[in-house]
Amino acid sequence: MPTLPPEFDLIARYFRPLAGEGSLGLADDAAVFMPPPGRELVISADAMVGGVHFLPDDPPETLGRKLLRVNLSDLAAMGATPLGYVLTVSVPADTASHWFEAFAAGLALDQAAFGIALLGGDTTRTPGPVSLSATVIGHVAPGQALRRHGARPGDSLWVTGTIGDGALGLLALRGEIADPDGFLAARYHLPRPRIGLRVAGIVSAAMDVSDGLVQDCGHLCQASDVAATIELGRVPFSAQARQAAMPHLCVTGGDDYELLLAVPPAQEARLLAECGRAGVPVTRIGAFASGHPSVTVLDESGRTVPLEKAGWSHF
Amino acid sequence: MPTLPPEFDLIARYFRPLAGEGSLGLADDAAVFMPPPGRELVISADAMVGGVHFLPDDPPETLGRKLLRVNLSDLAAMGATPLGYVLTVSVPADTASHWFEAFAAGLALDQAAFGIALLGGDTTRTPGPVSLSATVIGHVAPGQALRRHGARPGDSLWVTGTIGDGALGLLALRGEIADPDGFLAARYHLPRPRIGLRVAGIVSAAMDVSDGLVQDCGHLCQASDVAATIELGRVPFSAQARQAAMPHLCVTGGDDYELLLAVPPAQEARLLAECGRAGVPVTRIGAFASGHPSVTVLDESGRTVPLEKAGWSHF
Repeated sequence: MPTLPPEFDLIARYFRPLAGEGSLGLADDAAVFMPPPGRELVISADAMVGGVHFLPDDPPETLGRKLLRVNLSDLAAMGATPLGYVLTVSVPADTASHWFEAFAAGLALDQAAFGIALLGGDTTRTPGPVSLSATVIGHVAPGQALRRHGARPGDSLWVTGTIGDGALGLLALRGEIADPDGFLAARYHLPRPRIGLRVAGIVSAAMDVSDGLVQDCGHLCQASDVAATIELGRVPFSAQARQAAMPHLCVTGGDDYELLLAVPPAQEARLLAECGRAGVPVTRIGAFASGHPSVTVLDESGRTVPLEKAGWSHF
Repeated sequence: MPTLPPEFDLIARYFRPLAGEGSLGLADDAAVFMPPPGRELVISADAMVGGVHFLPDDPPETLGRKLLRVNLSDLAAMGATPLGYVLTVSVPADTASHWFEAFAAGLALDQAAFGIALLGGDTTRTPGPVSLSATVIGHVAPGQALRRHGARPGDSLWVTGTIGDGALGLLALRGEIADPDGFLAARYHLPRPRIGLRVAGIVSAAMDVSDGLVQDCGHLCQASDVAATIELGRVPFSAQARQAAMPHLCVTGGDDYELLLAVPPAQEARLLAECGRAGVPVTRIGAFASGHPSVTVLDESGRTVPLEKAGWSHF
């Protein structure tokens, strides 16, 4: 029998060490696992394409981690506990082995950080840019998944962490703004999904901010049939983002992977307690009112801020 | 609020009609579903890249169907019943709406044919060729998943359907061989996954033939620690493949998506009965013996057939 071709060699060398229970050592046609009894499954899939979602010279260590974290952020937005993932990797035929080594080493770090393991996938060449996709699977108590609908007039609007660092990081990596300590670039390369925050029963609606705060807030408004007002002066910016002084870009730029939460007034104390327990900063940035689904951003004098675009489309 | 960007428009127009229960209308951050109680889940993921897995002018109707069927074949190889799938679609920014229309229409046909629905996914542009990935989820009774290990010396080797049509179809589409009735091209575009064949408890090992009969049989031998002999004269070829008279290509060319089965002699009658019930042709093409994992292909006079390569690597 001839030597195994490189596809199988790649899988054995770089991906088998990442494979968890249920992956069957990546040696069968599919993965098999028993879902946690009595729990609903939560599934998210995302693709990342070189030149669209990441820069051609982004370090391969961070590519797989970012892909996982983007999906984990979707799971966090549903209040789910992650279990495992499948991965497809399409790379140019001349991709060097150290690329795979670094890519897999990054995945290993995040598997440990988030308690997940590789279940299966596919590795192939492409005549185009590196193209990755991941499907991440998690679980949630039945009926407890957080949803985008459910925000009600009178609820307040909250966001975790800081907004705009990822979008500014992209500008920094393109050499368009300064990033002396590399903080912004790091935030672009490695978002911080809010896995572990337990806000079921506290929030009335939730989603993750991935395509721009204003645009994503618009999706939540549409799903909930409410209008939102965001006070720009309350949106939490990192010291580095304040230094960059581009607040409009920050609220429309995308790549935040923070959670946007609608919170009934009576639940605000519980929200603060849970965020305190989890060590997740959270800030009230606005409120929901009845009206046609829309997002209005107000400046510190209460005037509407005109925005050229609400957010980011990957198409 | 500005008009929704094209990404969301695409999802609403072409993918939401495909979305099943659990997809939450593709309007939330992830899909949520309750797995069938007491069943193990089976998960398979595959990527398909233009110029590698399909031809640039392959009809978009068949692209999504082929991607689903490639994954469904993996589920069939595990003896699983399919439930649903997630999909990532990366296409050039100037892709016309009729491409999406045809792509989605093809998916709708196969959703109906195989009893599955779209759960979620991602649509994005790419500066490269069309790149697709799908993760298909199914279920199986606990411990009943078919596996590649388990073949034993003395078992016979069986294959469903016919071998080589897909590989010949690729040659036909490239204009390298004749295909007067379009049968071979159709087999390349639309493989026929053997979902519904119930051979748990009958076969000792199973896998699907996707990268070439000889190579895939080698994987089964490795997993089972046995040697296999294939009698080339017994390998089932379609009338069109016999006409092409390229048996070596047929057994190494890939794209078959038939099942390779190891069957203990005492189970052969049950195998034939089940294949009869399911309407799936099945042929005994060889046998397993003890020995170093290897595949020997014999011609009609019992001589070893020298093969340039055993199969196909997508890298």
